[in-house]
Amino acid sequence: MSGIWGNNLRLSIFGESHGKGIGIVINGLPMGLEIDLELVDKEMKRRAPGRNKISSQRKEEDSFEIVSGYFNNRTTGTPLCAIIYNKDKKSQDYDKIKNLLRPGHADYTGYIKYEGFYDYRGGGHFSGRLTAPLVFAGAIAKQILIKKNICFGSHILSIGHVQDDIFDLVDIDDSVIDYLIKKDFPVINDERGKEMMESIEKVRLEEDSLGGIIETAILNLQAGLGEPFFDSIESKLSQLLFSIPGVKGVEFGKGFEITRLKGSQANDEYYIKDGEVMTYTNNNGGILGGITNGMPVIFRTAIKPTSSIGIKQRTVDIKHMKNSEIEVKGRHDPCIVPRAIPVVEAVSALSILDLLME
Amino acid sequence: MSGIWGNNLRLSIFGESHGKGIGIVINGLPMGLEIDLELVDKEMKRRAPGRNKISSQRKEEDSFEIVSGYFNNRTTGTPLCAIIYNKDKKSQDYDKIKNLLRPGHADYTGYIKYEGFYDYRGGGHFSGRLTAPLVFAGAIAKQILIKKNICFGSHILSIGHVQDDIFDLVDIDDSVIDYLIKKDFPVINDERGKEMMESIEKVRLEEDSLGGIIETAILNLQAGLGEPFFDSIESKLSQLLFSIPGVKGVEFGKGFEITRLKGSQANDEYYIKDGEVMTYTNNNGGILGGITNGMPVIFRTAIKPTSSIGIKQRTVDIKHMKNSEIEVKGRHDPCIVPRAIPVVEAVSALSILDLLME
Amino acid sequence: MSGIWGNNLRLSIFGESHGKGIGIVINGLPMGLEIDLELVDKEMKRRAPGRNKISSQRKEEDSFEIVSGYFNNRTTGTPLCAIIYNKDKKSQDYDKIKNLLRPGHADYTGYIKYEGFYDYRGGGHFSGRLTAPLVFAGAIAKQILIKKNICFGSHILSIGHVQDDIFDLVDIDDSVIDYLIKKDFPVINDERGKEMMESIEKVRLEEDSLGGIIETAILNLQAGLGEPFFDSIESKLSQLLFSIPGVKGVEFGKGFEITRLKGSQANDEYYIKDGEVMTYTNNNGGILGGITNGMPVIFRTAIKPTSSIGIKQRTVDIKHMKNSEIEVKGRHDPCIVPRAIPVVEAVSALSILDLLME
Amino acid sequence: MSGIWGNNLRLSIFGESHGKGIGIVINGLPMGLEIDLELVDKEMKRRAPGRNKISSQRKEEDSFEIVSGYFNNRTTGTPLCAIIYNKDKKSQDYDKIKNLLRPGHADYTGYIKYEGFYDYRGGGHFSGRLTAPLVFAGAIAKQILIKKNICFGSHILSIGHVQDDIFDLVDIDDSVIDYLIKKDFPVINDERGKEMMESIEKVRLEEDSLGGIIETAILNLQAGLGEPFFDSIESKLSQLLFSIPGVKGVEFGKGFEITRLKGSQANDEYYIKDGEVMTYTNNNGGILGGITNGMPVIFRTAIKPTSSIGIKQRTVDIKHMKNSEIEVKGRHDPCIVPRAIPVVEAVSALSILDLLME
Repeated sequence: MSGIWGNNLRLSIFGESHGKGIGIVINGLPMGLEIDLELVDKEMKRRAPGRNKISSQRKEEDSFEIVSGYFNNRTTGTPLCAIIYNKDKKSQDYDKIKNLLRPGHADYTGYIKYEGFYDYRGGGHFSGRLTAPLVFAGAIAKQILIKKNICFGSHILSIGHVQDDIFDLVDIDDSVIDYLIKKDFPVINDERGKEMMESIEKVRLEEDSLGGIIETAILNLQAGLGEPFFDSIESKLSQLLFSIPGVKGVEFGKGFEITRLKGSQANDEYYIKDGEVMTYTNNNGGILGGITNGMPVIFRTAIKPTSSIGIKQRTVDIKHMKNSEIEVKGRHDPCIVPRAIPVVEAVSALSILDLLME
Repeated sequence: MSGIWGNNLRLSIFGESHGKGIGIVINGLPMGLEIDLELVDKEMKRRAPGRNKISSQRKEEDSFEIVSGYFNNRTTGTPLCAIIYNKDKKSQDYDKIKNLLRPGHADYTGYIKYEGFYDYRGGGHFSGRLTAPLVFAGAIAKQILIKKNICFGSHILSIGHVQDDIFDLVDIDDSVIDYLIKKDFPVINDERGKEMMESIEKVRLEEDSLGGIIETAILNLQAGLGEPFFDSIESKLSQLLFSIPGVKGVEFGKGFEITRLKGSQANDEYYIKDGEVMTYTNNNGGILGGITNGMPVIFRTAIKPTSSIGIKQRTVDIKHMKNSEIEVKGRHDPCIVPRAIPVVEAVSALSILDLLME
Repeated sequence: MSGIWGNNLRLSIFGESHGKGIGIVINGLPMGLEIDLELVDKEMKRRAPGRNKISSQRKEEDSFEIVSGYFNNRTTGTPLCAIIYNKDKKSQDYDKIKNLLRPGHADYTGYIKYEGFYDYRGGGHFSGRLTAPLVFAGAIAKQILIKKNICFGSHILSIGHVQDDIFDLVDIDDSVIDYLIKKDFPVINDERGKEMMESIEKVRLEEDSLGGIIETAILNLQAGLGEPFFDSIESKLSQLLFSIPGVKGVEFGKGFEITRLKGSQANDEYYIKDGEVMTYTNNNGGILGGITNGMPVIFRTAIKPTSSIGIKQRTVDIKHMKNSEIEVKGRHDPCIVPRAIPVVEAVSALSILDLLME
Repeated sequence: MSGIWGNNLRLSIFGESHGKGIGIVINGLPMGLEIDLELVDKEMKRRAPGRNKISSQRKEEDSFEIVSGYFNNRTTGTPLCAIIYNKDKKSQDYDKIKNLLRPGHADYTGYIKYEGFYDYRGGGHFSGRLTAPLVFAGAIAKQILIKKNICFGSHILSIGHVQDDIFDLVDIDDSVIDYLIKKDFPVINDERGKEMMESIEKVRLEEDSLGGIIETAILNLQAGLGEPFFDSIESKLSQLLFSIPGVKGVEFGKGFEITRLKGSQANDEYYIKDGEVMTYTNNNGGILGGITNGMPVIFRTAIKPTSSIGIKQRTVDIKHMKNSEIEVKGRHDPCIVPRAIPVVEAVSALSILDLLME
């Protein structure tokens, strides 16, 4: 039942990578909303492959068609369905390696779970391509949130061993976000950005891949958003972030580092500034007891290296149950991290909007 | 609405730290189940304070009373409600500091969210004490899962800067779990365990606190459990793990470290062993595409240092909106990590059981 | 999983008739609400048995204890749990007839569903007594709704063959509700009320029972409440109404009678009155397309005769699988209809509040 | 949020009558299921208009396209999305009467709820056309259920004042269902069927309309299905039945009539037949305590007369807020009852399947 999510804004996703199409039904959108489709398109393009050397050379156009819930250029308030029809499919690529489990992918787990009935082509329903409808929905959510001044900014904190500067947990403001959103390869330190791109180009030539960490800030969230326990900000965000294929870790504020501090260092002490309660530090990433405290919400998402690599790997032929080898040829991203950024931001926007609608 | 969780096994928690009691309603338990109440009690005691120097000297007895759903020593199949009545309360402790926001706690966010109506005493509904009902439910879940051979084992991977040995992601087996469960302070490397306890004793005397990381293994999960996207194993586990007060990071398999590997290193290659599909490595922590692959499921949970410390801290008097100071005196845990282990395991057991019932 | 209900206001009920107690956890109540506990108590008493000859002579005191979510006489906004401890239990009554299926009750279906593990005493979790927590929650919901002027009124439309006057579907107003709420045996036509009471007294002496129909009006609902399809007003109300033990039919507006009209008679034509859109008739009971149109919402609920009767009935001994006979002696209501009224109103209030919170 | 339904089988519907299309996403279908698309088509045709004189002369082809979740002629186990693209649309018909509220329709309530943003053409999202996706899903559910021998049969119990014979609540068997399914106009008593058709033809010529009652039987349901309280069989069925546009009443077993019986008449007494527990009567319609008892489940659904009629009606011009008149010309069904039968059966099948998957 995992294709449906949300308490107030409710999403239902569907589709397979090489089927007729992929899509989403969004319940609970406010009515009368004029969607800026160009902005949606721009977000879709941030995720789309084929933009440059460091991403897959596939040309998925990702052009969505709104089937329902949108009338006279405004949301109706009833379920909005959007479909992205699959075009640039090379399904025969997959038939050849149909029985060979691609390491790092869901081929084996999908095979076991769905007893061989699932659409194995291009990862089927497990494909990263299923994040496109989430980006679509997230782009709408962002448009609603920006009216409340809530905005999302991310940078590539690391690619492999190359590290960007870290966000200032306290002093980050909208200008940083404006700065990052304009960049094709969003880093704070351009020197490091160049190194990252070089290391990606290097593994591309080796037919290998790299992963990395995305650091995201949500700004201008009022204090008091979120719920104790099961719908804490961290719970909501992490549930969706871990839905993104390839994510293996999520941390908030100082994250794992906070465990190396003493309480007297980790606690964010309070003071009053211009009649507002503020904290001197922001080790908790703007969240206490699952609820926002008005400081920037900061989190990090670990993305594993792209599973599809051309290098020969040991694997198993699941049909004949014997050891084998595989080389996953084709047009793969040597590093998925830049394309994952709009997805991370989209699910964040969806989580925040769902909580705001509580 | 965050007090209700689950698709098939559905929990509803309630209560405040210093109110009449805390409790849980569990829907969806199988009928006819004879609960080993001693085992439940044992799990409750693992979480309970007052056991030794490193935990709070409060004596919460945490004795639960089953109100419904249990008849003739067996579950009836209808909702099981259990209540833990609050006893050893010193609510006046809190009245004194009622308007002083305790740094690191949910005092401020609770105040804002509930507009001053919430029960501020001892954290109210935000209290770590609310994890006791989860341990109760988790202890029942564990009893159901062990019949399928599924078991849970954890150790303290680190306290502050002191690091235990890491689990072998591939070769871990039930004997490790048996070894750890017997220990009052579960570490693999006893030398390091001693160092950890010493550092905890040190901060206790300083009226400061420490955090740490818990590493958990779930063994003998069959391949094919979990769902793509919103109910992935990682999504389900992280949602509940981040519900636990003080958790700031969650990672699976190699976690954040996997971002420093190349795809050719990170991918877990397959081979056949005794007619079973296995992987040589387990960097993905037993989960691919959100679904178990039959290898051990391994994850790490970052717990921040206890927020309650005796050291003087800067804060704000929320009623008079002025800067102030606070010393949180009382019987606090200098390090909550050991007591958090049964909670981490409990929510893991609940997540797995919910998915198994799909 | 049927013990949990609601999208925004979420209820979790638990308990058995002869166990330790019955109760409810209410999620989503607004914070800072001062509950008029006397009004709650009054609603509880409307449902409670033992008030007069026509109801059971059991004295269930139905005194509830609020365990959580209520602090300084106000709701905290966190889950509110209330428990009614069972007192006047005569469980041995039930042990004698333990294996004899009481006709009309859930003994057989409960036995099959829960494989003999359920608490058979007094109907266990199936007991009508489980409606007491619903009345508790409904009484709170009513207090919230009355602030928006929304009120609920019901009368006994029929007992057996004796019929009260029907509500005027268009002209009903608050004065009718004020009139009915004060009556112990709420009917419009007192002559018919007397006849009803006589017929109840007659079957009581025969150790038999009677059923009847309750007609309910919800007044001052603004137009535009409800949702198309699965959360239509009719869907929401009927789901909860059919949760009440003994309900076998629900109809809105003209209900089944509307099928005998032509479209030109059934359609409620519009006109403008004092700047408001009104309808001349109200055959649709204030609901079109699942959504309120501002006219009174009127519905009827059919309650079957009390299943517990002293008269000898044919039945089966389920343990020995042989035909047998049963006389259900004890303190039974010869007619449950008057006591069902506050339950019908309670679930209506809960449904409406849940929709209003959308 | 009313576009999503179900606990285990989860549906998400979308679309508007005159938009691009209408559709459904079905989560939770078993994998590897070969859908008999011809049977699906046959069910769709039972609902489709244009089949004969007594139904609308519109030719909606209702041909569905499966977008996802179906691979190599089998369900994959992942979300199945099907779309019916709208073809034979005459939207200009509606532009003319755009501001005139059609009595009996959701024009006014939709206008208020969605503040004028909803797609008013042909009822938009409120259109009866939205039941086509439900019939699609129901046809799949039926195919799954028939493997467990569970089948659904309905007849037209009444049209206006003309009454068919009533089902035998006890002795009904599969042969009755076989008999009814073959009939274009399913009645038990053909004489009465002819009268019904004549009365429909009569109102058609008058440009008026008729309603009626559908009686449905679900056969071969094992005892023990359903849940106490919120997911009782009656609750589940009624929630979906009242989702169908035009339904104003639902009753089970004897329904409203049971209120005229005494307990000694209403109670279904037990006996043993061939080692099975049976009841002599079936006044409770196969359901006790919300759970099946193994007897046929019988219920009745009241369908109001078609709201669209050519006869002049008084109404309001909502834009100019003045009294007006309307004649709803076009191709309307003089009686929707026969076309509603497959919808009633579809939602019944979906409810039962959802409960069976519990």
